[in-house]
Amino acid sequence: MSANSKIRVAIIGADGYTSRETIRLSLAHPQMEIAALYSPLDPLPRIDELFPEFTGRVDMQCEPIEPAKLKGRADVAMLCVPSGISMALTPALLKAGLRVIDFSADYRLEEPADYLQWYNQEHTDPDNLAHAVYGLPELYRDKIRKAALVANPGCYPTSAALGIVPLLKAQLVDPQDIVVNAASGMSGAGRVPKQESHFTERNENFEAYNVGEHRHQVEIERTLDPYARSGKTSALFVPHLVPMERGILSTIYLKPLQPVSVEHVMQVLADAYENEPFIRLRKDLPRTSDVARSNFCDLAARVAKSRIIVLSAIDNMVKGASGQAIQNMNLMFGIDETAGLI
Amino acid sequence: MSANSKIRVAIIGADGYTSRETIRLSLAHPQMEIAALYSPLDPLPRIDELFPEFTGRVDMQCEPIEPAKLKGRADVAMLCVPSGISMALTPALLKAGLRVIDFSADYRLEEPADYLQWYNQEHTDPDNLAHAVYGLPELYRDKIRKAALVANPGCYPTSAALGIVPLLKAQLVDPQDIVVNAASGMSGAGRVPKQESHFTERNENFEAYNVGEHRHQVEIERTLDPYARSGKTSALFVPHLVPMERGILSTIYLKPLQPVSVEHVMQVLADAYENEPFIRLRKDLPRTSDVARSNFCDLAARVAKSRIIVLSAIDNMVKGASGQAIQNMNLMFGIDETAGLI
Amino acid sequence: MSANSKIRVAIIGADGYTSRETIRLSLAHPQMEIAALYSPLDPLPRIDELFPEFTGRVDMQCEPIEPAKLKGRADVAMLCVPSGISMALTPALLKAGLRVIDFSADYRLEEPADYLQWYNQEHTDPDNLAHAVYGLPELYRDKIRKAALVANPGCYPTSAALGIVPLLKAQLVDPQDIVVNAASGMSGAGRVPKQESHFTERNENFEAYNVGEHRHQVEIERTLDPYARSGKTSALFVPHLVPMERGILSTIYLKPLQPVSVEHVMQVLADAYENEPFIRLRKDLPRTSDVARSNFCDLAARVAKSRIIVLSAIDNMVKGASGQAIQNMNLMFGIDETAGLI
Amino acid sequence: MSANSKIRVAIIGADGYTSRETIRLSLAHPQMEIAALYSPLDPLPRIDELFPEFTGRVDMQCEPIEPAKLKGRADVAMLCVPSGISMALTPALLKAGLRVIDFSADYRLEEPADYLQWYNQEHTDPDNLAHAVYGLPELYRDKIRKAALVANPGCYPTSAALGIVPLLKAQLVDPQDIVVNAASGMSGAGRVPKQESHFTERNENFEAYNVGEHRHQVEIERTLDPYARSGKTSALFVPHLVPMERGILSTIYLKPLQPVSVEHVMQVLADAYENEPFIRLRKDLPRTSDVARSNFCDLAARVAKSRIIVLSAIDNMVKGASGQAIQNMNLMFGIDETAGLI
Repeated sequence: MSANSKIRVAIIGADGYTSRETIRLSLAHPQMEIAALYSPLDPLPRIDELFPEFTGRVDMQCEPIEPAKLKGRADVAMLCVPSGISMALTPALLKAGLRVIDFSADYRLEEPADYLQWYNQEHTDPDNLAHAVYGLPELYRDKIRKAALVANPGCYPTSAALGIVPLLKAQLVDPQDIVVNAASGMSGAGRVPKQESHFTERNENFEAYNVGEHRHQVEIERTLDPYARSGKTSALFVPHLVPMERGILSTIYLKPLQPVSVEHVMQVLADAYENEPFIRLRKDLPRTSDVARSNFCDLAARVAKSRIIVLSAIDNMVKGASGQAIQNMNLMFGIDETAGLI
Repeated sequence: MSANSKIRVAIIGADGYTSRETIRLSLAHPQMEIAALYSPLDPLPRIDELFPEFTGRVDMQCEPIEPAKLKGRADVAMLCVPSGISMALTPALLKAGLRVIDFSADYRLEEPADYLQWYNQEHTDPDNLAHAVYGLPELYRDKIRKAALVANPGCYPTSAALGIVPLLKAQLVDPQDIVVNAASGMSGAGRVPKQESHFTERNENFEAYNVGEHRHQVEIERTLDPYARSGKTSALFVPHLVPMERGILSTIYLKPLQPVSVEHVMQVLADAYENEPFIRLRKDLPRTSDVARSNFCDLAARVAKSRIIVLSAIDNMVKGASGQAIQNMNLMFGIDETAGLI
Repeated sequence: MSANSKIRVAIIGADGYTSRETIRLSLAHPQMEIAALYSPLDPLPRIDELFPEFTGRVDMQCEPIEPAKLKGRADVAMLCVPSGISMALTPALLKAGLRVIDFSADYRLEEPADYLQWYNQEHTDPDNLAHAVYGLPELYRDKIRKAALVANPGCYPTSAALGIVPLLKAQLVDPQDIVVNAASGMSGAGRVPKQESHFTERNENFEAYNVGEHRHQVEIERTLDPYARSGKTSALFVPHLVPMERGILSTIYLKPLQPVSVEHVMQVLADAYENEPFIRLRKDLPRTSDVARSNFCDLAARVAKSRIIVLSAIDNMVKGASGQAIQNMNLMFGIDETAGLI
Repeated sequence: MSANSKIRVAIIGADGYTSRETIRLSLAHPQMEIAALYSPLDPLPRIDELFPEFTGRVDMQCEPIEPAKLKGRADVAMLCVPSGISMALTPALLKAGLRVIDFSADYRLEEPADYLQWYNQEHTDPDNLAHAVYGLPELYRDKIRKAALVANPGCYPTSAALGIVPLLKAQLVDPQDIVVNAASGMSGAGRVPKQESHFTERNENFEAYNVGEHRHQVEIERTLDPYARSGKTSALFVPHLVPMERGILSTIYLKPLQPVSVEHVMQVLADAYENEPFIRLRKDLPRTSDVARSNFCDLAARVAKSRIIVLSAIDNMVKGASGQAIQNMNLMFGIDETAGLI
């Protein structure tokens, strides 16, 4: 792709927060153009009605979703829709010649059996699933470049995997003894009002949810598995809700296979991420506010009480969703990986 | 009522925030007993399912609403239901021998025509409306003592009236030139999730709403009217939403009829509220956090640029709702007005 | 102590948040009287200048700290002062005939060597340290009743110990493999402004601090040690800061010694706390908002991925500080343990 | 200035929030280069120590402030320092050939007497004061282009003036009867920790401050004066603090000189701002969240109770400080006014 041409993006599911974030980031991207917005809402809203911050900046109306009509109109579809909907739309989008970046979980788990168990439905598009690439550029950069279909990772798994994989790879830690204690801002819960996202219920409140049962637990394990000698990891995942809009901090507890110094752990992380544009090793401790609205993942490690503790902070809406999608898009279209993101 | 006996309270509309607050306050009240809880929810919830803070403290299940069955079971009904529902239930409750304290607006406006205009429906119970007493004890203490039906005031009108009435009475200010600029925490919007009360929409956001069109504007005017020589006031009311749970601050702009000192204004307020247990005159400025969870109204005044500015802070859920209801109940049943509230 | 007489309390360090909370709770306590307030501030403030919420409710001026003068004026001193100051004041207070409840860490660690290591100073009052009782009523109720000097526990250790001790006692979990991941509201950081407690730095931010190095880590271990067969536990403690005022949630990761069901774990907790007035077992998950402003500790357990996860929520200012101090006071003076707290 | 060359900016007072915001915005600006950072802190900090969000992005160390040494090294100095300091540095900076954009109030008030009265000190640089231009581009665009010294407006006056000036100009409203009721996020209070900006004091709190006494009141009046026929306006200004980081909403109460429709008022605003890139007229009501991190000012008007109410929302750190400074810089150096800002 030449330096002047634009990547035309169709956003499907334009009425949610990941759509909003993608549009926001596109405004600073030199080669990204929002070509069309699709929403199931009726009547079809203007984007600045949904998100008044775009008033005077994005002059577009949502359209009804018809994958076939996208042929020739967009280069890539970003699927900002719930799991289950994506796999219904993806085959037609690919057939129409678009590349697809899917924000849902539909193409993240290699095994249809895992999908059935955790998402309570049969996978209806196993053929494309077989060719989908998990869109974590720090792990699968080369595959992403050539992929037609990228499964954009979950927010929690992104933050967890970036903190754990180098230590697993270096065989520093026990793959069977992983605890990911994570806390997220409320944008991760989406835009549809619910009792648990009602301001008065959330403000001045901190709580865990889905302890050991969150769907991202299996995604974390499947992402880590290839880096365990045995091919199998066991990770306990416990998410929490924080009264703030953005940010995830994962506090990861790992068991070193032999005594290790914090300097060594930090060095392993430093070596692994030496050339990574979006990973920052911190001497002090990561804070979600330091990565807010950015595509960075801030990492630090500590050693105490025979455990390695890795702290990993991302913005759940950026590196945990829309920013990573754009990073994947940049790779897929052969432009600078950091375009629009730094 | 003897010092040992209990006032039996039936809460109708037990699933909302004013119900929760009433129950919370009842736990510290020496003579108040929650006798029954009514909810339209199906299935009928336990109160500690709705509000887990009551776990181990309040062991009650909600019942379906049947006013007639309350006869002999409760002494007073607190109607924590929306406008329109109250006037459908009140006649039967009164007939069953209960006193009624209505949290809705149904019995606040003396003129059915006002109700029709601002609440878009005919008043269906004009007989009881004619005998209802507006439950602002600082203005109508004696009437409240004898009332069968008390219209518990709106949160904004409470905070506005307490700041303005003494100055109107003293003929210090122009009744035609009143601006009430108010800001409220989100509990005032109720417990039902809505887009505008979604955490992510409200956090890091401040906005005005219903400028000059809020239903409390007419309630403010009707409450002030009797204190104007002409019997008529004109008040502009502009409410705002603050990203916090509780509290209302009204910043009230008044036009003095002749030049006046801040000391004189403060003295007029001090004289008016000399014996009031819940009004506190502040030398510094009121803050919503100072009145949180209390039945106090904190007041201060300033004079600048040919205007009197009155600052009035209450907790919208207490002096603005449940606390004032209990203050009214205390008066209606002849016990210490401050019981359970200080 | 007779049911009518009052326990006269002197608060030393009246200008901090634990003092404020103690005063707030005293207002609802039938037998507690704030007899004197001591502060190092110059000029000596009125309490309603420090905390305007007490305007019209508490009419007291702070006095300079002179332990000897308290003789006959107060029955108990609550030391709301930093570690290091308490042990300088306690001998004189005891000599003056007062009982002492110390909010600092000075008398919490039995071994002066632990104090030296973690608080970087020699313990200057080892004699009284030897007789001090750790004020966790659920563990040491009988000793507290007879104690002259009670070391009021830290907020994090309270929440951690209440969740762990019954499982250690039942020999259900490995005493060497304990992780306490905790998150606290900002009132725990005290009233003195600091960069990290500046609103703009804290809002929309979540971070860990003092990973494996917090002083409460050793307090947690020393509190748990007696319940391990070996007399020795190893606990990793990682605290986090939440953008809210109140509440601690500890998410505790324990290793079962053999496979165990969640039902069994819950039963062990239920049996342990059967008669405890302030411990609530929750079927759903604890939330900090459910225990806010109360002395309750809400507990729940889950089993997943070969681990027991215990969730433990308290209000750091109440069960984690002032409420527990009052619970201890109630025990020390032989009145109802729950007086003023339920 | 050619389209490729860079404007070299020296930030003086690099350790405050307006510096941080200026650096943040510079990262997206095609022709702006941070050439040097000056701070009075000792030891001199790296910018990513002060603001860890810049880790890996801005590799600069602060230097001690020496205006003369800036000669040839920077094209413009941005003075992010308190009032009083600016006028001590500005003469030397101008002498060194730099243009100056001053964020303080030192050059905002034309009359030294006003400065003396409101800032309690003699103005020490009346010569440059006489040539300074008030940097509100919507009012003084042409003068700004040619200015050597621009006084960057206060945050509150920016939001107030943009809402009022067109209506004054159109002689629609009484210049003697203006009330500006404003509410601001906490970043406006700066980065130095204070009791009133302590998280626990601010959270769940809303309050007014400096009622009729805030220094921005005179700045608002002096900014409005030229647009009143008489050359003199009277504006009452009442600011409030909101528990959020960013944003100002001014709710402005104006007295129409004759009856007027809301459509007419909106039309007057629309005509005035037809070609303004940063003013957005809103049919619904402005929200601070819609302008967060942007240089937009969102405006709407309502008419009720014989008053015009104008709602004006800006981000206090952007249009209210750093964004407006960059807008001024763009004008001063002859590049696209919106560069780096849209």
